[in-house]
Amino acid sequence: MLWLFQAEKQEVLHSETKEPMCNRTGRENEMATKNEAHDMVIESLTQGLLQLMTQKPLAQINVSELCDRAGVSRVSFYRNFKSMQDILIQYLTACTDEWYQTFSQKPDEEFLSCFCVELLEQYRRHADLIRLLYNNDAAHLLKEHIFACCKLDEFTAPEEAYPRAVLAGAVYGLVDEWIHLGMGQLPEHFSLRRIVSAVSYQREEPKK
Amino acid sequence: MLWLFQAEKQEVLHSETKEPMCNRTGRENEMATKNEAHDMVIESLTQGLLQLMTQKPLAQINVSELCDRAGVSRVSFYRNFKSMQDILIQYLTACTDEWYQTFSQKPDEEFLSCFCVELLEQYRRHADLIRLLYNNDAAHLLKEHIFACCKLDEFTAPEEAYPRAVLAGAVYGLVDEWIHLGMGQLPEHFSLRRIVSAVSYQREEPKK
Repeated sequence: MLWLFQAEKQEVLHSETKEPMCNRTGRENEMATKNEAHDMVIESLTQGLLQLMTQKPLAQINVSELCDRAGVSRVSFYRNFKSMQDILIQYLTACTDEWYQTFSQKPDEEFLSCFCVELLEQYRRHADLIRLLYNNDAAHLLKEHIFACCKLDEFTAPEEAYPRAVLAGAVYGLVDEWIHLGMGQLPEHFSLRRIVSAVSYQREEPKK
Repeated sequence: MLWLFQAEKQEVLHSETKEPMCNRTGRENEMATKNEAHDMVIESLTQGLLQLMTQKPLAQINVSELCDRAGVSRVSFYRNFKSMQDILIQYLTACTDEWYQTFSQKPDEEFLSCFCVELLEQYRRHADLIRLLYNNDAAHLLKEHIFACCKLDEFTAPEEAYPRAVLAGAVYGLVDEWIHLGMGQLPEHFSLRRIVSAVSYQREEPKK
């Protein structure tokens, strides 16, 4: 799910039509069963990979070994994931998606002032996963996940792509530093607006 | 060389005392010769690695192979670099250091408005190197180089470390997007200040 910080946020959210899950037809029931099977495959592969990563570096784990561990065919693997790394990126995104779906409905002012703290709170709940990535030469996957959440697709015009890329980088810089500093509290009143003012050049501010 | 964007920039720059290189003593001549030999080792290892990277992935190049190619001992390698990756990070930094040394003397307003364009201009001069990194699973080294240039050390207080990390991320996001978009022109009037305002939430801006 794309994290949107600017004016288009409300437009995009309102354009998503949410169909109620009750009163399913026969075809819908069939789809639901398929979805559950699909979720099981993803869950098995993800948990299998996390277990293997506690035993050896990610680079030494191969697809066959993971499929054996997860009880899933190679076809199922490649139907859902481009690579081993893709499993971890999708899992990181799933960890923040549920939170963001609710959080993004907040009024603008609250959204901006609480975003950093609440995002980090989500990652703190998955501290074991984060440590596993950072101790397993896979820290770059956190970056890829954050960039995927903050950026639009390849058809985005440069005028919009650059600010989004800069924002993605800024959020990643914050999260990465927070991890390096032990996943503790942020400095008081640290909000997205505060970050933006901190990185700007304060020419107007008188020297003390 | 650390890229400084805030008030401490001038202080740090002025605290660097530059000794004149003329009127060398005997000991200073000896040191200069040592420095030249040291530069030769670094140059040989760097060029050797860049050549090998045109032939095979970075992960398949080992230290012995590189030392043979460069005509340098393993001891010399480890005296100068922590790893193969370290060679590339130091080289990227050397590519921007000379420019930054001069550029950082510019008046504040010009510094801020020209930083992005001039930084990218430096990278454009090394487009072959950038492509080599991005085509060789080594794009993360550009990130490490930019973070090293933008951040202070491990003793930096969190109040300063977070804004610096965010700034590092923002600069990296810009450069990475510029590379993905083909290293062309930035959108007109794209400055560091413009970036900062672009990533901030424009609540005050009326909708058109």
